Amino acid sequence: MAETFDKKKTIDLRHKYIGPSCKVFFGQDPIKIVRAKGQYMYDERGERYLDCINNVAHVGHCHPDVVKAGAMQMEILNTNSRFLHDNLVEYAQRLQATLPDSLSVCYFVNSGSEANDLALRLAWQYTGHKGIITLDHAYHGHVSSLIDISPYKFHQMTGNVLKAPSPDIYRGKHREDHPDAATAYSDEVENIIQDAHKKGQKIAAFIAESLQSCGGQVIPPQGYFQKVAQHVRTAGGIFIADEIQVGFGRAGTHFWAFQLQGKDFVPDIVTMGKPIGNGHPMACVITTRKIAEAFMSSGMEYFNTFGGNPVSCAIGLAVLDVIEKEALQSNAARVGRYLAELLRQQKEKHPLIGDVRGVGLFVGAELVKDRSKRTPATAEAQDVIYKLKEHRILLSADGPDRNVLKFKPPMCFSEENAKFAVDRIDEILTGIFSCSGCQIPSPSDARPGLWQHSRLHWTAAT
Amino acid sequence: MAETFDKKKTIDLRHKYIGPSCKVFFGQDPIKIVRAKGQYMYDERGERYLDCINNVAHVGHCHPDVVKAGAMQMEILNTNSRFLHDNLVEYAQRLQATLPDSLSVCYFVNSGSEANDLALRLAWQYTGHKGIITLDHAYHGHVSSLIDISPYKFHQMTGNVLKAPSPDIYRGKHREDHPDAATAYSDEVENIIQDAHKKGQKIAAFIAESLQSCGGQVIPPQGYFQKVAQHVRTAGGIFIADEIQVGFGRAGTHFWAFQLQGKDFVPDIVTMGKPIGNGHPMACVITTRKIAEAFMSSGMEYFNTFGGNPVSCAIGLAVLDVIEKEALQSNAARVGRYLAELLRQQKEKHPLIGDVRGVGLFVGAELVKDRSKRTPATAEAQDVIYKLKEHRILLSADGPDRNVLKFKPPMCFSEENAKFAVDRIDEILTGIFSCSGCQIPSPSDARPGLWQHSRLHWTAAT
Repeated sequence: MAETFDKKKTIDLRHKYIGPSCKVFFGQDPIKIVRAKGQYMYDERGERYLDCINNVAHVGHCHPDVVKAGAMQMEILNTNSRFLHDNLVEYAQRLQATLPDSLSVCYFVNSGSEANDLALRLAWQYTGHKGIITLDHAYHGHVSSLIDISPYKFHQMTGNVLKAPSPDIYRGKHREDHPDAATAYSDEVENIIQDAHKKGQKIAAFIAESLQSCGGQVIPPQGYFQKVAQHVRTAGGIFIADEIQVGFGRAGTHFWAFQLQGKDFVPDIVTMGKPIGNGHPMACVITTRKIAEAFMSSGMEYFNTFGGNPVSCAIGLAVLDVIEKEALQSNAARVGRYLAELLRQQKEKHPLIGDVRGVGLFVGAELVKDRSKRTPATAEAQDVIYKLKEHRILLSADGPDRNVLKFKPPMCFSEENAKFAVDRIDEILTGIFSCSGCQIPSPSDARPGLWQHSRLHWTAAT
Repeated sequence: MAETFDKKKTIDLRHKYIGPSCKVFFGQDPIKIVRAKGQYMYDERGERYLDCINNVAHVGHCHPDVVKAGAMQMEILNTNSRFLHDNLVEYAQRLQATLPDSLSVCYFVNSGSEANDLALRLAWQYTGHKGIITLDHAYHGHVSSLIDISPYKFHQMTGNVLKAPSPDIYRGKHREDHPDAATAYSDEVENIIQDAHKKGQKIAAFIAESLQSCGGQVIPPQGYFQKVAQHVRTAGGIFIADEIQVGFGRAGTHFWAFQLQGKDFVPDIVTMGKPIGNGHPMACVITTRKIAEAFMSSGMEYFNTFGGNPVSCAIGLAVLDVIEKEALQSNAARVGRYLAELLRQQKEKHPLIGDVRGVGLFVGAELVKDRSKRTPATAEAQDVIYKLKEHRILLSADGPDRNVLKFKPPMCFSEENAKFAVDRIDEILTGIFSCSGCQIPSPSDARPGLWQHSRLHWTAAT
C-alpha cells in the first residue's frame, strides 16, 4: 500500500493530534509499518522485520482465515447481544470447552481492561468485600480501577489495594535456592490477609497474571496458586487468573497458563483478551455460575454495546479454529523450547545474561551487569533492542528494571526465526562485551553505517 | 444465512453460557436476528423489522463502504499504535476538523466506557481534584468508575460523586413554564459546588451527555451548558461532553449535539463512541493540548492495545465519508423534523402522549396516564413496544420511568419509515384507548392472531 503521508509528515501529525502520553516504539527513530503477514512486518520502504513481540497477532498477522471470517460476518450482520445470535452462543460454548467445567459463564467485552474491571465488579458483588490483593509490578489495564491495582504503572496504592511480592524466584524475595518458594510466596499473601483482617479490611479477590508479563516474564513456582487460592478463599475472597497476555496456547503444554500449576488448581474467574481476536478489539470474562448469579442478584443489567457482537464472535471462532488446524499450541511448545535452549547456550557464553526462563512462546532473558549481585543491565537491554532493530528484529525489554528481553511472538514463529534472532543477539552481545573495555568495533559491527548508528544509541542509552 | 442452531437451542445455550445479567430485548419472546441492511433487520424466518433503535449502526447496518474499508485494512495490517501509521493520524485530523480548534488532541480507545473512564482520569490529573458532578438518571458506561457516576444504574453515590438534577423541562424540577430554566438548572450545579466546597471537596469535572439519552431523551435548555461550564471552571473543574450516543450528525443541524447550545460553548473534553465505527468496537476522547500535557506530566504512558489500530481508523474514516457522501446529517434533520411533527399530531389525538421532544433523529415521546399530573405510563409504554414488535417495528422505552418511546434509528431512516412507524403507533394507541373502558377490539387490531398475541402481552405488561 502506498503511504498517504511521508514518514516525517506522519510524525508531525502524530505530535499534533495524538495524546503525548501515547508512546511509540523506538521513540528516537520510530518505525512506520504499512503491512504485515504471519510473523513479519514491513515498513514503508518494504523492509521486512521479524516480529518477536506482537502476541496480539496470535495466529500470525492478517491470517487469511481470520480476515475472511471477519469480513464475511461484517457483510451480513454486526449488532449487539440484546438480540439472539448463534455466533455468540457457539463461541461461548467453544471457549468454555477449553476450561474446567466449573468455569462456565461468559461475559464478552472489548478489551482486557474491560475484562479485568468486570472481574473486580464480580468479585466485589459476590463477596461483599472490597480488598484486592495484587502482585508487585503487576499490570492489569488502563481504566482507573486497574491503574489502582497495577504497581507497574502506579506506586500509590489506594486503601483497598494490597500488594504481595511477585513470585519471582530469580530477583524476588525468595529465590531459586529456597527449598519451597511456592509456600514462602503464598505465606506472604496469607500474612497480608491477616494484617488486613486486623485492620478490619476484608478480601474480595487475589488477582494475578498466570505468568507475569510486564512484571518481567515471571513464572510462578508450581503450587503457588493452589496455596494462595486456599488462603484467599478461606478469607472469603476469590481467585482471578488474568490470561490476557498469556492465554490461548502460548504456554505450549497447556491452553491456559494457569493450568501449568496443575490440575488441582481452578481459578474462580479467568479474564482473556489480546490474542483472542488476533487484533480485533474483543475480550472475555469467564466465571462460575455461582458468581454470575450473585452478580445478577444486584438487579443491575450488564450491557456492553459491542461485546459479543456477531463479528467479534466469528473472528474469535476463526482464531480457535486456526490454533487447532495449524497445531499452534504444539508449535509454541516446540519452538519455545528450542528458543529457550538457544538462549541458555548464550547464557553460557555471555555473562550479561543472568537468567533465561520461559514456557512455550513466552520467554525472557534477564540481563545483569553482575551475576552474583544480579544488578539490572537496563541500558544494555535497551541497546540490544535498538541494535536488533537495525537487524530488522523487533524485540522489547520489560520488567520493573526494563532489563528482561521479552519474547512473545506470533504463534507461527519458527525454529529458523528463533535461530536468526538469537544469532543476532549473540553478535550484539559479543560486540558490547568486546568493546566495553576498549573502543574497537567488534567484527559483527563492522559495517560502518550500522556501527555508527549503534554507537549513537549506545551512547544515548547509557 | 442458515442458522447453526434452531431458536430454542440458541436460547438454551444462551442460558447456559452467557452471564444472566446480560439481558435480551423482549425477554418474554426474544428476537433472533440473522442479517441486517440499512435500517432493516431480518430474523431467522426472513421476517423484516424496521429498526428505530440501533444508533450504533449509524450509517445503516452493514454499509458496503464501511465493510469494504474494514475488510481491506484487515487483510493488510492490524497492529497497535506504538508503530506509526497513516490511518491513525489521518483519522485524528479528520475528527478534529469537526470540532472547535481548541479540542485538538485525540486518544483512541475501544468503547464509550473506556472513553469516559479516560476522560475522568484526564480531569483528575489536570485539576488535581476528585469531585465529579453528574446528572440524575445519567448513564456513562459499565466500568466500575462509571457505574459510580451513573445514577441510571446505581443510586448509591460514592463520596466524590455529586448529583445535579437532570435539566428536564418536562418532568424535572424546573419546567417549560419557568422563565429561565437554563439559569435555574445551572444554579443547581452552582449550589452543589458551594456545598462541596464547604465540605472541603474540590471539583474535577462536570460530565453530561449533550442530550441525555437513557435518562429520557432530555434536551437541555439552551445556555445551560455555558452557565454550568462557567461555574465548574470557576471552581477549577472542567466540562466533559459525552457525545457517545448522540454525536456524528444525529442532532441534524449540528455534527455534535453540544453545538446545539451555541457557538460560545466549547467543552474541555468530548467523548465519542457507539456510532463512530458503525458497530466496530472503537471510541475516542478529544481534549485540549493543555489537559493532554498535564496528563503526560504524570509520566505514565497511556497504552491501549487495540485503540487506534489501522482497521478501526479505516472504518472510522469510512463512516465519516459516508455521512458526508450520503448527506446523512441533513437527512437526520429533515426526517427527524418530520418524525417529531407526526408524533406531535398523535399527541393532539392521544392523551397518553404527554410530550414529544427531539432534535434530528433523536426523538422521544413521553407517555403519561394523566397529562396534568404527568403520571408515567410505564406499562402502556411497554405494551406499545411489544405491539410494535408484532408489527415488525423495533422501538424501545427508556427514561427513569421507562415511559419514553425512544427513536434513535440508523441515519438513513426515511420519511416513509417515520410515517409507517407512527401510523402503527396511532393504531396501537387507538386500540389501547378504545379497549381500556371496554373489551371490544379496535378495527386496527382486527386480525385475530395479532389481537390475541397483543392481548397476551397487554395482560402480561399491566
